[in-house]
Amino acid sequence: MRGELRKDPATGKWVLVRPRVRNNGDFDQGPCPFCPGNEHLTPPEIAAYRASTGHPPRAGWDVRVVPERDPYFVIEEDLVREGIGMFDRISTRGASEIVVESPDHGMTLESADEAQIERVLWMYRDRVKDLKRDLQIRNVVVTRRHGKPGSLIRHPYSRILAAPIVFDDLRTELTQAREYFAYKRRCVFCDTIREEAATGDRLIQLTPHFAAFVPYAARVPFELRVLPRRHASAFEEIAPDEVGDLARLLKSLCGLLVKGIGDPSYRITLHTAPNLAVKIVQGEWDTIERDYHWHLEILVYPERAMWVAGIAVTEMLPEEAARILREAGSLDQPRG
Amino acid sequence: MRGELRKDPATGKWVLVRPRVRNNGDFDQGPCPFCPGNEHLTPPEIAAYRASTGHPPRAGWDVRVVPERDPYFVIEEDLVREGIGMFDRISTRGASEIVVESPDHGMTLESADEAQIERVLWMYRDRVKDLKRDLQIRNVVVTRRHGKPGSLIRHPYSRILAAPIVFDDLRTELTQAREYFAYKRRCVFCDTIREEAATGDRLIQLTPHFAAFVPYAARVPFELRVLPRRHASAFEEIAPDEVGDLARLLKSLCGLLVKGIGDPSYRITLHTAPNLAVKIVQGEWDTIERDYHWHLEILVYPERAMWVAGIAVTEMLPEEAARILREAGSLDQPRG
Repeated sequence: MRGELRKDPATGKWVLVRPRVRNNGDFDQGPCPFCPGNEHLTPPEIAAYRASTGHPPRAGWDVRVVPERDPYFVIEEDLVREGIGMFDRISTRGASEIVVESPDHGMTLESADEAQIERVLWMYRDRVKDLKRDLQIRNVVVTRRHGKPGSLIRHPYSRILAAPIVFDDLRTELTQAREYFAYKRRCVFCDTIREEAATGDRLIQLTPHFAAFVPYAARVPFELRVLPRRHASAFEEIAPDEVGDLARLLKSLCGLLVKGIGDPSYRITLHTAPNLAVKIVQGEWDTIERDYHWHLEILVYPERAMWVAGIAVTEMLPEEAARILREAGSLDQPRG
Repeated sequence: MRGELRKDPATGKWVLVRPRVRNNGDFDQGPCPFCPGNEHLTPPEIAAYRASTGHPPRAGWDVRVVPERDPYFVIEEDLVREGIGMFDRISTRGASEIVVESPDHGMTLESADEAQIERVLWMYRDRVKDLKRDLQIRNVVVTRRHGKPGSLIRHPYSRILAAPIVFDDLRTELTQAREYFAYKRRCVFCDTIREEAATGDRLIQLTPHFAAFVPYAARVPFELRVLPRRHASAFEEIAPDEVGDLARLLKSLCGLLVKGIGDPSYRITLHTAPNLAVKIVQGEWDTIERDYHWHLEILVYPERAMWVAGIAVTEMLPEEAARILREAGSLDQPRG
C-alpha cells in the first residue's frame, strides 16, 4: 500500500495514512539536489522555463518542476473509491510536484528579482492549469515553506499537491462563501477587501490589483491574507499585470516580515477553486465562480501554537500585528 | 479588554484573542498550589468532595474545583455579541475551572484507585450540569492533559471550559451526526461501535458499558475514542454503573499507553452535547438527542504533527496502533 485517504464519519474530515517508505534524510547527506548541475539527483523533469536568448546567453533553467521523491499523491495510481464496512477510503491518485524556484540556492522572496518571482507565479499557473486537465483531480494546492525547522532542503522550492478530494479547509471556505452570498448577494472576500481598505486597522498594503491585510480573526499573531481586488475564483486565470503586481507585493511583504519580526519561519498557501472541469465538483459547487475568490494565506509559525478545546488562541491583537508590519515598512521611507 | 472571540467570515471559525495579562510562570516558583495545605494559593473553591466519615477519618478534600487564575472565559463578564463592521465578536463570558483530581501530587490515571477516578468523573458530571444551568453558556468542554511539555503544574488536574458559543469541532460533529442520521436513520456513533466490535481490527476494549477503539481515520498514530454503548447525547446523564465502568476503562487504557508506548503525553477531551436549555441551541440542533452521542477522545501527542494542505498525515495504520496497544495488555495475562 502506497497510502490512502480515510474519512472519519464522526467529523467528516479526511486523513492521509501513509506508512513511511523511505528515510527522507537521504537528501541531507549529499549535494543539494535542486542546484544546477545536480539535475540527475531528482526524478525526470516535468516542466521548466529556460531563457533561449539573453546576455549572457544561458543554457540552464530559471524555474524547474520535478516530481516529489516521496510523493503524497501519485499520477500512476488508479483512482479507487471504496467502502470498508461503513467507512470511506480513496486511493492517493493525484500528483506531488516540486517547483524549484531558482537556480540560486540562497534565493529568498525578499531578496529575489521581481522577474524571478513572476516566473515562479507563472509556473504555478501553468502547473495548476495542466493538472486540472486531469479529471480525476479535484483539488490543487500550492504551498511554500520558508525556514521551517526540520526542512532538510534549504534551496527555495514550492510544493504542488493535486488530490482526488476537495480538502476540508477549501470545502469549509466554499460552504461559507456560498452561505454568505446566498444571504448578502455579495462575495464575502470582496466585502472583506472593502472593509479592510475602509478601516485600515489591519491593512498592510493596497496595490493596484491586490489587498494584503491581517485577518480580523487571525489564528496566530502574524497571519496575512492576500486577495486580488478583481473577483475571480481561480488563480490560474490571473492576468499578466496581476502577476507583476503580485510578485512585487510578495517581495515587499516578505521584506516586512524580515524587518518587522526578524526573518520568521512561514508558510504560504494558495487557495484556489477546485477543478470545475470535473462534473461532480461543478454540480456540488455550482455557484463557485460567483461565491469564491482565490487568495494567498501567509502564516508565520508561532513560537508555540495555542489551542483551547479546538479553538486557536492568540495573544496579539491583529490590529497590533498590522501596525508592527506597517511600521517596519515606514522605516525605509524618509520622514517629513 | 480581557479577551474576545472573533469569527473569521471566510472560514466560519472562531479565534480567541487574549492579550497576555500575566506571566503564568509565577506558579512555577513556589510550592504546588494544588497540594493539600496550599489551598490559599488558589482562588476560592467552587466545589469539593470531602469524605465526612471513614477510617481513618479525613478532614481534607478528595476532589476540588477552583477557578483558573488566568481564565479564558469568565463568569463576571457581560455577554456581548456585536458586529464590528462586517465582522462578529463575542465577549468571553463563560467559565474556566480547574478540577484538582486528587490530594496526591503524583497521581496518574493508570496508578490511581478506581474509586478516585470515579470521584473525578462525578465531579465532571456535577460541574457540567451546574454550568449548563447558566443560559448564557452554550458549550462545556472538559480536557485533561498528561505530560505535555510546557505544562508548569505536575499535580493532576482537568480543565473545564464553558463558552458562549458552540465550538467549531463540536459544531462539525453535530452537523455530521445529523446528516448521517437523516440519511441512514441511525446514529453514526452507534453504527461505529457495532462496526468496530464486529471487525475487531481497531478495537482495544469492549466493556459492559463502553467501547474503546482506534478510529478508522485516526489523525495521529495513537488516538483512542471511548464511546458509551448506550446511546446518549449528554455525558452529564451518565448512570452510576457507567461511571464505575468508565473509571476502570480509563485506568486500563492509560495503563496500555504506558506499557505499549512508554508513558506518552496525551490529551483527553470530553465531547458532550451543547447546552440544550438554551432555546436557540435547541432550535438549531433540534434533533441532537437523536443524532449525537457523547464520547471521550484520547489523543497522544505525536513526536511531530504532520499536515499537508490542512490534512493530517499519519505514518501508522490505525490497525497497527490498535494491535500494539492490545498486545501491551496481553502481556499481563498468563499465556495458555
